[in-house]
Amino acid sequence: MTYCVGIKVNEGMVFASDRRTNAGLDNFNSYSKMYVHKGIDRNIIILTSGNLATSQAVFNSITKDLEDDTNGNNLNNLFNLNEIAKYIGRLNVKHSSPDGINQETIELGSTFIVGGHIKDQESELYLVYPQGNFIKSSEFKPYLVIGEIKYGKPILDRVVKSDTYLGDAARCALISMDSTMKADLSVGPPIDLVVYKNNSSKIVYQQSLEINDDDYQYISKQWEKGIFEIFKSFNRFNWEDK
Amino acid sequence: MTYCVGIKVNEGMVFASDRRTNAGLDNFNSYSKMYVHKGIDRNIIILTSGNLATSQAVFNSITKDLEDDTNGNNLNNLFNLNEIAKYIGRLNVKHSSPDGINQETIELGSTFIVGGHIKDQESELYLVYPQGNFIKSSEFKPYLVIGEIKYGKPILDRVVKSDTYLGDAARCALISMDSTMKADLSVGPPIDLVVYKNNSSKIVYQQSLEINDDDYQYISKQWEKGIFEIFKSFNRFNWEDK
Repeated sequence: MTYCVGIKVNEGMVFASDRRTNAGLDNFNSYSKMYVHKGIDRNIIILTSGNLATSQAVFNSITKDLEDDTNGNNLNNLFNLNEIAKYIGRLNVKHSSPDGINQETIELGSTFIVGGHIKDQESELYLVYPQGNFIKSSEFKPYLVIGEIKYGKPILDRVVKSDTYLGDAARCALISMDSTMKADLSVGPPIDLVVYKNNSSKIVYQQSLEINDDDYQYISKQWEKGIFEIFKSFNRFNWEDK
Repeated sequence: MTYCVGIKVNEGMVFASDRRTNAGLDNFNSYSKMYVHKGIDRNIIILTSGNLATSQAVFNSITKDLEDDTNGNNLNNLFNLNEIAKYIGRLNVKHSSPDGINQETIELGSTFIVGGHIKDQESELYLVYPQGNFIKSSEFKPYLVIGEIKYGKPILDRVVKSDTYLGDAARCALISMDSTMKADLSVGPPIDLVVYKNNSSKIVYQQSLEINDDDYQYISKQWEKGIFEIFKSFNRFNWEDK
């Protein structure tokens, strides 16, 4: 499994993904599930979960299309994020039914979060399904998650709004990831974390964080400490000793 | 779906269950999934998730066996919690394969958390599977969950240890339930909450809490407030404006 989260707040965007892949507990490995493209007029970030062969084939096609720009659409020449989501959807369907097999049902499909910013357009965030179709993030809950999504959802639900500070959104993504890794062995470090800031039109933070890295350790420990502070702050039930 | 949690700390035990049942979004209802038995020398609490017909049939059988105590085993005459878990397992298998159908595979099975205290024995907590077999809670993570278990797990993982105060365990169960209800429409109020205290050998708190009840509101709001305090307490990344 995998856990990836994309957040879009007014100030910018946050992307986080783990690196664990597995075909059973006795066969796990570490691959990045994040593709970062910094173009002249755009920054595009793509996260993926699902069939690893399909996801890697999609990432390879993206790179190949960028290198051979006589060959039609690529991340540099597509006009907007919606077109890019459509492009990723096409690659996804193509690679999940190689050589004409597996065409009736999508058994080897992957799921993608596609986000970023082009020229003076508004930044956008999409979720691309194994079937190649896609949805846009909502205003009300401006985040998208794929993979092992349940453990890390409550903290996103409580914290992330459109007007949340970009830094808080980044910390929330890390806490959501930390909660998931502590609860589920199929999600594991390092964590790829990218933060994009609207007003500077650039990626202001791009790290592959190990568990013992300072930024990760600080947030995980401060969060844990804070939780115990909340518990200390509660009024007691009347049946309690203390 | 359903969410139930049972916690066993040194001071006592906590049991919480939601009441929403559904056979699709357009067909939901409200039933208690908690069975509380206060005997002369024992308090037994049973929570259930899974096939509602099977769960209700098991609860009915428990009551019937208690009323007709010439009829073999019941919650009053079984000697210890292990025997009671075995008894619930037998009832579970019996009612999930009524009249000889569905015997090869358990398709209509339910899952149960069985906990409590008998005489001077140590209090215990079991999870009974649809197949009728069961496990005991571990010392390291002294809680068991059934149903829609993922959303509410991170807070239990972080907070609940054997030496956690009973009141904190009760608040943690409510927060875990609150997180789950906010994330998943298949889990809903009211919340049945029971707290058992070892040194008094009795149930010290038994409530069916609605969302707007004081105890529930207080804990939910204080938790939310506390989380935002933690976010305020974090050091900023160096790329942040504030």
